[in-house]
Amino acid sequence: MAKTRKSREVRLIPITFEDNVVPGMDIAETLLKSMRRHHQRFRQGDILVVKHKIISKSEGCLVDLDSVRPSAESIAWAEQYELDARVVELALRESRAVIRRRNGILITETHHGFLCANSGIDVSNVDGGETALLLPKDPDRSAANLRRALQRKTGLTIPVIITDSFGRPWREGLAEFAIGIAGMKALRDDRGRRDSHGYKLKASVEAVADEIACAAGMVCGKLNRTPACIVRGLNFSAGRSNVRELLRDPETDLFR
Amino acid sequence: MAKTRKSREVRLIPITFEDNVVPGMDIAETLLKSMRRHHQRFRQGDILVVKHKIISKSEGCLVDLDSVRPSAESIAWAEQYELDARVVELALRESRAVIRRRNGILITETHHGFLCANSGIDVSNVDGGETALLLPKDPDRSAANLRRALQRKTGLTIPVIITDSFGRPWREGLAEFAIGIAGMKALRDDRGRRDSHGYKLKASVEAVADEIACAAGMVCGKLNRTPACIVRGLNFSAGRSNVRELLRDPETDLFR
Repeated sequence: MAKTRKSREVRLIPITFEDNVVPGMDIAETLLKSMRRHHQRFRQGDILVVKHKIISKSEGCLVDLDSVRPSAESIAWAEQYELDARVVELALRESRAVIRRRNGILITETHHGFLCANSGIDVSNVDGGETALLLPKDPDRSAANLRRALQRKTGLTIPVIITDSFGRPWREGLAEFAIGIAGMKALRDDRGRRDSHGYKLKASVEAVADEIACAAGMVCGKLNRTPACIVRGLNFSAGRSNVRELLRDPETDLFR
Repeated sequence: MAKTRKSREVRLIPITFEDNVVPGMDIAETLLKSMRRHHQRFRQGDILVVKHKIISKSEGCLVDLDSVRPSAESIAWAEQYELDARVVELALRESRAVIRRRNGILITETHHGFLCANSGIDVSNVDGGETALLLPKDPDRSAANLRRALQRKTGLTIPVIITDSFGRPWREGLAEFAIGIAGMKALRDDRGRRDSHGYKLKASVEAVADEIACAAGMVCGKLNRTPACIVRGLNFSAGRSNVRELLRDPETDLFR
């Protein structure tokens, strides 16, 4: 008889933030305070998913756009497509490679290795609109720090996934992706296991962390004050991992 | 004050199938029978997510591999990379374009417009291993049929999303994608709305259907008999849509 992993109900529980996040803020404490106010508490087995925005803000990954001096090249390109040259300049600075630059769209590879528009810089809804919000410098470390802080305060070991929404090749619409992870495996490798008919599975490595990110994207939103959520009831593999496991080796990537 | 969309808990409720799906089987009836056995029932506001495999099987999208005569080209390419030439041949037949063909990897554009490996053909765990399972011919219609059948039997209007797991450029691991949809909008367009700080959102079109597919991917698995799940509690926009809305126009796609 084939081994089957039993499926159980999974709950996505939004965590609301009443407070504005400011640089230096203790995110673990703010989260727990907000949860207490809504009679929520972590349980062993929970996963915490957090939008990068509150992490970036608390870590002070903010740049006053007036302080950015764009190059002549950035200015020319920005003017051609009615873009903000300072944002273009900043996106280039936050990248280690330009992947595509066409029709006013700039797809870069960030220092972390993420492929996304404008190096993931967000200017749409940060205080005043003249401040750019960058991705955290080391999102895996941010996730590990948050996980450790929660463990100190609650005694529980809660895996943490930090997410951002990226556009995708071939498909319309943004989707949420894991950009930092701590305390659980990013991938589930089912190769060599057998399905419920007893047949061996071939190429079944599942991007669990990205699936969790997307699931959280359903309840965490830009339009509500819900920058985080709890994923409760999911079978996951605890352990060390990092977001690089989710990034395809450029050598084997057919679509760069 | 900015408008905020209130967030609430979302539940992912796995639906177990005890029976093997066979061509001609009434999937709506089988689903409802299985749910009754587990004391589950649909509620208004639920979304049903179904892995394509049970749809394809019930629609008879099966090909006996022994009936496939591969071309000399397919045979040569398959031999070079130790692949099954019949599967290569079938993948080409199910495609309208070859996107990449390198190092034994064949990425095609299916007749529906999906970009994926081997036109989404599954031979890993179909009866015996010598039968190939194809994607449904018209997954939107399959979704609409299932939705209508459920409406007849329950009186409820339940949106249906059919999914498959695809590999992705840039990222490791498979993730779940919507390949058919009925009864709800595939994309959420927040452009022009304001966030909780009152700032206008720029490029916020969210691929809700793909996020739902990924969320369902967490509880529906290959290793368990859970080919479907209910998404309960999600705010969604009811209405007509189709999966083509999720497919980027090749003209504007920078990564083909």
